[in-house]
Amino acid sequence: MSSAERLIESTRELLWERGYTGTSPKEIQRRAGAGQGSMYHHFAGKPDLALAAINRTAEEMRAKAEAGFTVPGTAMERITGYLRRERDVLKGCPIGRLTQDPEVMADPGLRAPVEQTLSWLRDRIAEVLEEGRERGELAPGLDPRTTAATVVAVLQGGYVLARAAESTAPFEQAITGVLDLLAAHTSRPAAG
Amino acid sequence: MSSAERLIESTRELLWERGYTGTSPKEIQRRAGAGQGSMYHHFAGKPDLALAAINRTAEEMRAKAEAGFTVPGTAMERITGYLRRERDVLKGCPIGRLTQDPEVMADPGLRAPVEQTLSWLRDRIAEVLEEGRERGELAPGLDPRTTAATVVAVLQGGYVLARAAESTAPFEQAITGVLDLLAAHTSRPAAG
Repeated sequence: MSSAERLIESTRELLWERGYTGTSPKEIQRRAGAGQGSMYHHFAGKPDLALAAINRTAEEMRAKAEAGFTVPGTAMERITGYLRRERDVLKGCPIGRLTQDPEVMADPGLRAPVEQTLSWLRDRIAEVLEEGRERGELAPGLDPRTTAATVVAVLQGGYVLARAAESTAPFEQAITGVLDLLAAHTSRPAAG
Repeated sequence: MSSAERLIESTRELLWERGYTGTSPKEIQRRAGAGQGSMYHHFAGKPDLALAAINRTAEEMRAKAEAGFTVPGTAMERITGYLRRERDVLKGCPIGRLTQDPEVMADPGLRAPVEQTLSWLRDRIAEVLEEGRERGELAPGLDPRTTAATVVAVLQGGYVLARAAESTAPFEQAITGVLDLLAAHTSRPAAG
């Protein structure tokens, strides 16, 4: 790996573990095994390097989510698959956690990929739900837009509960709860 | 206000705004208008002072939530009242945000009040839902435990979405979405 690559990957790890405010350029250099000169040769500074790291994490997150949404199945199956996918629950969401980082939120350039990723996710889930409604799988009264916001919020809040409890149990409960609530809005198959 | 009080209140503000990792003893002293000698006279150090601040915030959060849960009304009305209560949405939850703070999560003493508050909240909402089920207001199939985890997760995740978007809109959507999902599980009143 080139030193620019190592710097980006080390920054991604540190942002996830310690956040932006809690990570110093020195720590990034140490983890990347790169000197200060190398870091400032490749990147204008910590914000520039963090932006490269956040953009890459955001792209990965979208690609993984999209892979779940495009599988065959009912809307309910695709949403379930997405929510039940294996995750590093106790580490939390590498994008969502940045919303608690005061220096990321204060920098419009760093906040933009966080906003875009979470807003894309809501849009994408709303589309899946809308498709389900059009195919008659979901009750016509279900609002795709607000339900999608609920689904993404449950995921993000589930991480908060799991981290507080140092256990994945409340995350799993929150996911089960929202899927059970949603299940009542699926159209029952005609009796065979 | 005594200087000990000013130190606690300043720490509460800074924990909410910048988190624990992002707040230095110097910043606390500056905001409190207290010297280093005063801070170390009253508190053993930053963790000790932060614990006093977190405990007070946790107590306030519980008291406010409890006030909402003990009002008369159906379970659905009480949960709605709790979720729709006026909040400083863009600042997020002063307790939930600490789960993203690496130094708080690494310190069992500081993590304890965060864990206890969120776990108390889940228990309390599960009780309200259980009461609603016993009174026949909610469908017998509704699981109070997982549904309570979902409700708390929606709230915590709603803050994440609002902060990312710099707008309360996705928070409001997530709350509306979960209340609409829950409404389908309320027992319809007998036709008059």
